[in-house]
Amino acid sequence: MFVILVYDVGEKRVGKALKICRKYLHWVQNSVFEGEISKANLVKLKKELEMLIDNDEDSVILYTFRSQKYTGREIMGKEKATTDFLI
Amino acid sequence: MFVILVYDVGEKRVGKALKICRKYLHWVQNSVFEGEISKANLVKLKKELEMLIDNDEDSVILYTFRSQKYTGREIMGKEKATTDFLI
Repeated sequence: MFVILVYDVGEKRVGKALKICRKYLHWVQNSVFEGEISKANLVKLKKELEMLIDNDEDSVILYTFRSQKYTGREIMGKEKATTDFLI
Repeated sequence: MFVILVYDVGEKRVGKALKICRKYLHWVQNSVFEGEISKANLVKLKKELEMLIDNDEDSVILYTFRSQKYTGREIMGKEKATTDFLI
């Protein structure tokens, strides 16, 4: 299936969240990830994030699509994926 | 068409970005919005955001889907849409 994931986590956990998500998905920009993922890997991804996040502070939103990719993706402004987080 | 929008804008422009996006889409949480939107309104939304954002600092990502909604949406952690921004 195809997944779009957006997280909003506390600063202390951002690095780890990024690392986990990158194992399974492609990083689009900042806190946005996407990609094809198997059901088994989606379960793993969710488990790893569950272990990490603080339920009182953080949130993760997961859109799942059967197999259909989006028909368009447009980025306005700065293309952040290539810069900030790599520093 | 169906749209998922995620923005990452400087603090000074967050309030205005929220206001613009809310005119056209449903607020899911924090910087994530979604909804059915006409082509004409999508053009308007994009123009308003273009006027607002700082191209060196901000970014907006727009996923567009022909008419097919996502098959699943899951929120892990805090459901932020109902609280933070209303203060």
